[in-house]
Amino acid sequence: MIHPSAIISPNAKIGNNVTIGAFCIIHDFVEIGDNSTIDNYCELGIPTPLANSDALIIGDNSRIRSHSCLYTGSNIGHNFVSGHYVTIRENSSIGTNVQLGSRGDIQGDCEIGNFTKMHADVHIGKASKVGQYVWMFPEVLLTNDPTPPSETLEGVVIEDFVVLASKVLILPGVIVGKDSVVAAGSVVKNNIDTGLVFSGNPAKKLCKSNILRLKGNIKQKAYPWRYRFHRGYTDSDVKAWLSEIDS
Amino acid sequence: MIHPSAIISPNAKIGNNVTIGAFCIIHDFVEIGDNSTIDNYCELGIPTPLANSDALIIGDNSRIRSHSCLYTGSNIGHNFVSGHYVTIRENSSIGTNVQLGSRGDIQGDCEIGNFTKMHADVHIGKASKVGQYVWMFPEVLLTNDPTPPSETLEGVVIEDFVVLASKVLILPGVIVGKDSVVAAGSVVKNNIDTGLVFSGNPAKKLCKSNILRLKGNIKQKAYPWRYRFHRGYTDSDVKAWLSEIDS
Amino acid sequence: MIHPSAIISPNAKIGNNVTIGAFCIIHDFVEIGDNSTIDNYCELGIPTPLANSDALIIGDNSRIRSHSCLYTGSNIGHNFVSGHYVTIRENSSIGTNVQLGSRGDIQGDCEIGNFTKMHADVHIGKASKVGQYVWMFPEVLLTNDPTPPSETLEGVVIEDFVVLASKVLILPGVIVGKDSVVAAGSVVKNNIDTGLVFSGNPAKKLCKSNILRLKGNIKQKAYPWRYRFHRGYTDSDVKAWLSEIDS
Repeated sequence: MIHPSAIISPNAKIGNNVTIGAFCIIHDFVEIGDNSTIDNYCELGIPTPLANSDALIIGDNSRIRSHSCLYTGSNIGHNFVSGHYVTIRENSSIGTNVQLGSRGDIQGDCEIGNFTKMHADVHIGKASKVGQYVWMFPEVLLTNDPTPPSETLEGVVIEDFVVLASKVLILPGVIVGKDSVVAAGSVVKNNIDTGLVFSGNPAKKLCKSNILRLKGNIKQKAYPWRYRFHRGYTDSDVKAWLSEIDS
Repeated sequence: MIHPSAIISPNAKIGNNVTIGAFCIIHDFVEIGDNSTIDNYCELGIPTPLANSDALIIGDNSRIRSHSCLYTGSNIGHNFVSGHYVTIRENSSIGTNVQLGSRGDIQGDCEIGNFTKMHADVHIGKASKVGQYVWMFPEVLLTNDPTPPSETLEGVVIEDFVVLASKVLILPGVIVGKDSVVAAGSVVKNNIDTGLVFSGNPAKKLCKSNILRLKGNIKQKAYPWRYRFHRGYTDSDVKAWLSEIDS
Repeated sequence: MIHPSAIISPNAKIGNNVTIGAFCIIHDFVEIGDNSTIDNYCELGIPTPLANSDALIIGDNSRIRSHSCLYTGSNIGHNFVSGHYVTIRENSSIGTNVQLGSRGDIQGDCEIGNFTKMHADVHIGKASKVGQYVWMFPEVLLTNDPTPPSETLEGVVIEDFVVLASKVLILPGVIVGKDSVVAAGSVVKNNIDTGLVFSGNPAKKLCKSNILRLKGNIKQKAYPWRYRFHRGYTDSDVKAWLSEIDS
């Protein structure tokens, strides 16, 4: 299951039933969980003096697509799925069941909660804190420096169940509240409370998010999306979400 | 012409006079047309359960630049040219003489017409339909989900000869009419009729596109561009376009 | 220091104490300065008929991160540092101590001054002229064609010490004056004089840049940034900048 052209450190810990593709490089102290697949041309465990730990831990049942670069010092939960060409820097904590699309870039010292899904070209600036069940669509960018260049890092906070549509830009230190939705192409300069829709450059409040309806299905509320969209989530999560509606 | 480090499936069909670079991986059922060049580190024919066919077909005289990833199930016409790091997913139909710049990303189930040219970092969302002779400049993004996340896919339609300038974002289901021009940085939320210029966030109608003149040449109409820009097109196309002006 | 899997042309000139990673390809007439490190999967000296010279020159003490693609005909000064997946095309002149983040793309015929720093996903269009000590943050895009498609190339000019924040788009031929700051997400359609802050789509003048203060430190002017931010610069530069304040 390990391609003969791959270069694997004897200090790496490779789980059971792991596949490692051609031309991969696995450095010291990388730990790959059982049943995971590392596609071709990946380099895992790139050393950096910024890392708090020599290890890079990747959970069971993960799939890392080709040409990806992961540094030491980060911890990635089970069932992680990446696209191609992703980079994950040091000291980031990534929950279980996270998806990161092609060319996704998670900078150092980030936190990403369970079941958060990022499409292609999402850039998570250093020191960002992203909750659980968050959706980020292509070219979302989370920043961190209020007066660039500076030594100040004000990471963005994205709370649970938030949706950031394509090309959304979040300015440093902004908090986007639970269940809020930011429309495509928006530039968010100020905090957003829970359950709101923001749009524009600069982004302004449009309405509460539970007012929006599905296109072609006027009776179905579009948000919170967890009341209607369940693909890829656990039965217990879905049951809890449905019981929220009734309450 | 095939580098000894390349890994080529015996089930791939390699045409005459094909060059395949170092560290390439060519999977089963890939068909590469005559006189094509596949640069280094490319992986062609990546399998996916979403593909309608096990084949990946690449036309004659194509050039695929390095570090690119192409899946099975797509059909690419003659004279295709890509930049580096491009990804093309399953079930897409790409015409002849198409160009796709570096990091271009064509998602699944797309149609791209002949002679369409995409610069760097163009992202074509799943189920998009792009006509012929379209120009898309860096960081153009075509989306598809009107209420993300959902199971609804409303692909964008870009008609023939359209120009989408840099960083243009097209929202799901939008139709951009023939000969229209969208200015750089615009966010297009509604359909655009034929022959118009739209600009802004949200994009609004500025004028008819045939009113714009070339900078420094006030007598020369800038659009439709095919009346003045002919590099890379066939003599018969150019002749037809010039005769349109007179009519 | 040269990995046995790397493919090195006998016509390349490799300096003293150079490290070249696994699966690299170094073509003819590449010159790599002393003490430089080329990480894995890089291809240097890609030939192109557009190049004015067969050489690609990389200065001493440089670090080029993995999966990068550099063409012939460009000249890169000492202490260059790149991220992953960068592309640098032909005939560009890049000063000393320049940084180019992951997926950075420098097109042909560009000039980049000393100590200019570009974060991830910066795209420098063909024929751009960027001064010294410029900062460009993620997804900045410099364009060049005023009526796309055309044969006209009007490169952008970015003067010394300018800051272009994340996702800034500069339209063709625009000049951004020394010490100016463009806010995140702005689309710049007209020239900007020295020492101003511009913001929005289209970008408009907000104020002079020396009016802005650091967050949480109301007495400290944020710009010109060289009066307060000195990490990575030489003692003589810093001394000169501090003496400017007093004068």
